[in-house]
Amino acid sequence: MRILSGMRPTGKLHIGHLFGALQSWVNLQKEHESFYFVADWHALTTHYNDTDEIIKNSIELVKSYLAVGIDPNKSTIFIQSEIKEHAELTLLFSMFVPVSRLERVPTYKEIKQQLKDRDLSNAGFLIYPVLQASDILIYMAEGVPVGEDQVYHIELTREIARKFNYLYKEVFPEPKPILSKVPKLLGTDGRKMSKSYGNTIPLITNENTLKKMVMPMITDPARKRRTDPGNPEKCPVWDYHKAFGINSEDEAWVKDGCTNAKIGCVDCKKLLLKNMKEKLEPIWEKYNLLTDNYVKDVIVDGNKKAKKIAQETMEKVRSAMNLDYSFLKGTR
Amino acid sequence: MRILSGMRPTGKLHIGHLFGALQSWVNLQKEHESFYFVADWHALTTHYNDTDEIIKNSIELVKSYLAVGIDPNKSTIFIQSEIKEHAELTLLFSMFVPVSRLERVPTYKEIKQQLKDRDLSNAGFLIYPVLQASDILIYMAEGVPVGEDQVYHIELTREIARKFNYLYKEVFPEPKPILSKVPKLLGTDGRKMSKSYGNTIPLITNENTLKKMVMPMITDPARKRRTDPGNPEKCPVWDYHKAFGINSEDEAWVKDGCTNAKIGCVDCKKLLLKNMKEKLEPIWEKYNLLTDNYVKDVIVDGNKKAKKIAQETMEKVRSAMNLDYSFLKGTR
Ligand code: SF4
Ligand code: SF4
Repeated sequence: MRILSGMRPTGKLHIGHLFGALQSWVNLQKEHESFYFVADWHALTTHYNDTDEIIKNSIELVKSYLAVGIDPNKSTIFIQSEIKEHAELTLLFSMFVPVSRLERVPTYKEIKQQLKDRDLSNAGFLIYPVLQASDILIYMAEGVPVGEDQVYHIELTREIARKFNYLYKEVFPEPKPILSKVPKLLGTDGRKMSKSYGNTIPLITNENTLKKMVMPMITDPARKRRTDPGNPEKCPVWDYHKAFGINSEDEAWVKDGCTNAKIGCVDCKKLLLKNMKEKLEPIWEKYNLLTDNYVKDVIVDGNKKAKKIAQETMEKVRSAMNLDYSFLKGTR
Repeated sequence: MRILSGMRPTGKLHIGHLFGALQSWVNLQKEHESFYFVADWHALTTHYNDTDEIIKNSIELVKSYLAVGIDPNKSTIFIQSEIKEHAELTLLFSMFVPVSRLERVPTYKEIKQQLKDRDLSNAGFLIYPVLQASDILIYMAEGVPVGEDQVYHIELTREIARKFNYLYKEVFPEPKPILSKVPKLLGTDGRKMSKSYGNTIPLITNENTLKKMVMPMITDPARKRRTDPGNPEKCPVWDYHKAFGINSEDEAWVKDGCTNAKIGCVDCKKLLLKNMKEKLEPIWEKYNLLTDNYVKDVIVDGNKKAKKIAQETMEKVRSAMNLDYSFLKGTR
């Protein structure tokens, strides 16, 4: 099964991305041929008037992919906008995707409401699920690791694949979403994680910053004083404990200590910090070892591999649609 | 001034195309660097499920361009879908073109109503003015020979150029429509020219067929009998006379003969046939001399020239939008 997924280069990653996506990508590459890309054209659908940092963010994103363990010997890492074939396929798909179908995509209205400060009235934002379908289908990907909110887009991708196969010729597989169990993690202030709240813990950071973010974290509001008993199930810190893999001994210690007011939240957070550091430090170290030239080489190689497959697919697409002018070649 | 225009490869051309467009193209190439293309991606916006003939029609269209006198040494003749950069630019433009703006394009609703047998509900049909803007702007064209119905599209192209220049960097000129005086020509049955009515005279045909189409043409209904006087101004044949260039002596002969019932419509049509033949026969002859290999070479050359310019423009576009990853080149 070929796997494909990507992220938008709209800023620094936080630990939500690690558990929401990157960790499952790292696992999937062990058994499947995988393609992980930087969705920079997608970033334009929401950030068309704010492109100053887009290349910096793209490179940064690839560094993060590498730091968490995406292995360029196993996975193809590439930049979407460098594979122009995505645009061609998007244009071709758009010929048979009804506007009304795109308006019905649930996230279309939702995101418009969420991102009220952004201009989302544009054609690019309307057709971005078509671009997404192209991203996936151009690599004949069959599995797409996504979050719950993206399942509908994969369904649309399947529809587009089916319609193409029906209208022209059997070319595309119908990809399936791969949903991994994503631990629920709130922001450090107990609200939904959001960069705009400043309540997210960066994926790439250092011990000091981590400490400064974890120690003031919101806990069970019942524990006003150390002597007040609490309930881990009502505490965001406990969710982090689970996400970062607490062992059973420590789990018993926290549960007993919290519910019976035997430990303070500071003790509990110190344990969390230790476990977080254990998991994150190797990522930071790897990140810091990555040279610019190495990252560039990874991208150049990935782009090359991606382009080859995208070109092969487009040859099939053009031939199926009767748009194959390759017979012109060789006259001169 | 750089000139660009194109036609859809949706079937054989008729003499309406000669006077509506091709004749002015031939004239424009004398003084301006000109680009004339086959808009095969545009054909998909209305004919996505009917692509069997698209390549045949594209080649045929280029042959017609050449037959009427488009000179490949003066003009660049190319196939749109072979210059993938149009798709990339379309995608990038779509990021800042409001959906509502596209819905307001007058032809959007009009054509939907006219072509009720076609499925025009698709995203491709909605965004085709954006594709058109890309076709024009990617060659930095400043003059676009168009019919009245396309003037609005050029206005939209100007808007897109302005918005791009404003958002990112001054890259594009604002092209102007070039309206040539188009003679009014009705179909042979007196209705609007339309392939579906079978009332159009093919551009590429032969004397016999021409005769069979011209002789039964509708004339001024007042001339039921040869002895009934008529009025050229009420006669479609007279419009053809004017379009095909009647000399003043003959003009006097027709006007006098018609209004005073001195000539029959058959005489009048014979004169028209002679003049039509004079104009069309060199086109047919040229058409019949064109070898497949020559036409292919013209296209291959044109595509190459077009691609070079399109690539240069895209480099400017990517650099203006901060999407220029060319710094990656040269690491390996
Ligand atoms: S002891 Fe731990 S689990 Fe209990 S409220 Fe404090 S931080 Fe949360
Ligand atoms: S004589 Fe000529 S202009 Fe007059 S009605 Fe007949 S065809 Fe028309």
